[in-house]
Amino acid sequence: MVKFVSCLILLFSLRAVAQKEDSVFIRKIADEVLMNSQAYRNLEVLCKTVGARLAGSPGMYKAEDWGMNTLKTAGADKVYLQACSVPHWVRGGKDEASISYPGKGGKQVKNALDVLALGNSVGTGKNGSRAPVILINNFEELEQRKDEVKGTSVFYNHPFNPRYVQQGKAYGESGLYRRSGPSRAARYGALAVFTRSLSSSSDNNPHTGSTSYDTTLPKIPAAAMGLKDADTLARLLKEGKKVEGYLKTMAHFLPDTIGHNVIGELTGSEFPDEFITVGGHLDSWDAAEGAHDDGAGCVHSIEVLRALKAIGYRPKRTLRVVLFSNEENGLRGGNKYADEAKSKNEKHVFALESDNGGFQPRGFELGMTPAQMSKARLWLPLFFPYGVYEFIQGGGGADVSPLGRTMKTAIGELRPDSQHYFDVHHARNDVFENVQRRELELGALNMAALIYLVDKYGL
Amino acid sequence: MVKFVSCLILLFSLRAVAQKEDSVFIRKIADEVLMNSQAYRNLEVLCKTVGARLAGSPGMYKAEDWGMNTLKTAGADKVYLQACSVPHWVRGGKDEASISYPGKGGKQVKNALDVLALGNSVGTGKNGSRAPVILINNFEELEQRKDEVKGTSVFYNHPFNPRYVQQGKAYGESGLYRRSGPSRAARYGALAVFTRSLSSSSDNNPHTGSTSYDTTLPKIPAAAMGLKDADTLARLLKEGKKVEGYLKTMAHFLPDTIGHNVIGELTGSEFPDEFITVGGHLDSWDAAEGAHDDGAGCVHSIEVLRALKAIGYRPKRTLRVVLFSNEENGLRGGNKYADEAKSKNEKHVFALESDNGGFQPRGFELGMTPAQMSKARLWLPLFFPYGVYEFIQGGGGADVSPLGRTMKTAIGELRPDSQHYFDVHHARNDVFENVQRRELELGALNMAALIYLVDKYGL
Repeated sequence: MVKFVSCLILLFSLRAVAQKEDSVFIRKIADEVLMNSQAYRNLEVLCKTVGARLAGSPGMYKAEDWGMNTLKTAGADKVYLQACSVPHWVRGGKDEASISYPGKGGKQVKNALDVLALGNSVGTGKNGSRAPVILINNFEELEQRKDEVKGTSVFYNHPFNPRYVQQGKAYGESGLYRRSGPSRAARYGALAVFTRSLSSSSDNNPHTGSTSYDTTLPKIPAAAMGLKDADTLARLLKEGKKVEGYLKTMAHFLPDTIGHNVIGELTGSEFPDEFITVGGHLDSWDAAEGAHDDGAGCVHSIEVLRALKAIGYRPKRTLRVVLFSNEENGLRGGNKYADEAKSKNEKHVFALESDNGGFQPRGFELGMTPAQMSKARLWLPLFFPYGVYEFIQGGGGADVSPLGRTMKTAIGELRPDSQHYFDVHHARNDVFENVQRRELELGALNMAALIYLVDKYGL
Repeated sequence: MVKFVSCLILLFSLRAVAQKEDSVFIRKIADEVLMNSQAYRNLEVLCKTVGARLAGSPGMYKAEDWGMNTLKTAGADKVYLQACSVPHWVRGGKDEASISYPGKGGKQVKNALDVLALGNSVGTGKNGSRAPVILINNFEELEQRKDEVKGTSVFYNHPFNPRYVQQGKAYGESGLYRRSGPSRAARYGALAVFTRSLSSSSDNNPHTGSTSYDTTLPKIPAAAMGLKDADTLARLLKEGKKVEGYLKTMAHFLPDTIGHNVIGELTGSEFPDEFITVGGHLDSWDAAEGAHDDGAGCVHSIEVLRALKAIGYRPKRTLRVVLFSNEENGLRGGNKYADEAKSKNEKHVFALESDNGGFQPRGFELGMTPAQMSKARLWLPLFFPYGVYEFIQGGGGADVSPLGRTMKTAIGELRPDSQHYFDVHHARNDVFENVQRRELELGALNMAALIYLVDKYGL
């Protein structure tokens, strides 16, 4: 314990003296971002003049224009597009859903549900789907009750585990029901699926997000409902009420089309052929402005370039800001970026992503070798003044992962505070007004600091 | 550097093994709070059935009833009131303000300002105050331009320093203009004062808060305006426009009245005559629900008691939850509590306050001896899983400070993330809807963990 105490003392005293020069430089980055950041204003323009921008939609093209222009204004040496084929799923109109059940005195009660069809869902046809609803709390229960599923609408009601402090962990677990729930229910003859939204919010907004069909099974339509509706429906079914569910969605796929990763570079002064990537994804779900998901990551990344350039820092390696295409329902942009890097045999030193919202930063998740991790952790005290207290080993973000896999590039992802993200994630309230300027800026400045250190010292 | 690395490694490995028993127990506290907390529901009742509750107002008495009932329901052995004299300031109606200035073509333009008179302000009388506005950026400028002040309305426009990562530091600096600005302007003959609200928010809500008059000088009325109005007014004055300001407020004091600290106890099993205090203040400004300031601190403190009792923990020392009276414009409750403790010669081990909002906890500020601080810091790794990464030396909160001064009691204060607090602080938007359930719960569970450790090990 004594050793531990002296270590703590040493650690805290090192906060004062460690890497003085770097701490001064990072303070300069911080001042630039906190006093002159364009991130918040850029996000407002993206959210309010482009808005929703799902792959293939008109918003996608407007967002690509926004990205090109904003990168140029931020001071990129070079701005270009990297084309890739993207899926083109459309909601096809307003989704409708309701439940009806016997109320007091046997009179049938009908309640509308606020739903959003899951991304990639098939449609119901214009007459909708009407079937008795069966409550399924988890996949074990589905297997036990598989004989009851035929001809029903399966309602997966798997809430976020409140015990998890990190909401991402709850999302990972409950997310299985959105991703593979529809096909697993179709296997036993279900006609449609309702899911409890992946959130622990206090409102009733439905949260969409991709589902993924098993192509060997019938594709059935699926929609998410808000938490209040889910609680009501679960209560009715637990009381033994016979509930009929109605779902109408005209969702369908159009043919694949061409989208683009939007890329801006600051050419490296010493090693122009070594790349450090920083990015977020440009697409968003169709029902929201995609302010946190992932407008924040886009403006974070652009701000890294802008701030470093504004204070006169010329990176040794080429800094690439990448606004990835089609993260939400295909990851085609992230895959394309890694494929191109591979085919050109580019040398990638590090790729950092921001795709967890514009909230107060808490740390970074890093996917790298133990030796690289040890090196990076030496820098951690430099981040304490800006609210970042942990570098944890992990997978990095979705869009940089293909680069990690294909090229063995060290990758990372900003970890903002997770409590609020799933209040807005993939929901209508993911709007600019729910982003706080200083939290957004603190994310950008911590990212810029990490990029600076990697550029200066390598990994 | 090698020593530093090995220390970091040791520190991180100790996260896994340190104080296993305590970590298991704290997990139990966390589970109780995250799964069964009453804090959010209690806060809703306080905000929506009581609402504003400034000292002396009808809301104060309703809030005291709420506190008694809620502490009883939470499981306190003993609930009682501690009476104290409190000031009784009233706004006396809606404040009004406007500016007029020559527009294009010389035509006079009149703009309404959204203002709130500062707490404790005197009124203008029903005709209001009308005077040319002079822009004063800081006290140095006031001294330089003191000859221009007579007969004017001084407009203090001292923004939060954006470079400070901790917003509390900016509040401390800019707060001088709210607290002592009116008297300093009165010294040179000003008739009224406008202040820029103490915030860095993106909206135009005015933020009230106490001003404090120098009793040797004339008392002049003072009001805060929102940031958009402040920016507009500053711009006009910088452009050299002659701006006339109008302020009408009927604010005044009524005679002092009697308020109460509301106290609930869990009697100590081994040392019933040793006290550990945990509290927040029950009063709020008149213009808001006081959800973050300081409804959150009240329900945090009640939840500490409820959760410890619910999991069967019997404290060794007597745990006292104190809902302090009149923090906002008098601190009479905090002073009364310390005076009583002194006069009864009570033994106080520790007093913990929550008065920085119901946001994601980041750490604790502790006001204690270096030896106590070293002991407390041994516990820090136990808090990492719940988002708390720092115990910093500091003053503790306003309401427990008198106990620290009078009795040399070790004191502390929860440090939630500071970015959002001054978006709502003392403003109309400090409402229940702006509190997030899980952030509130995480505050309560970290406080309960610290109280448990102090109770178990002493200080």
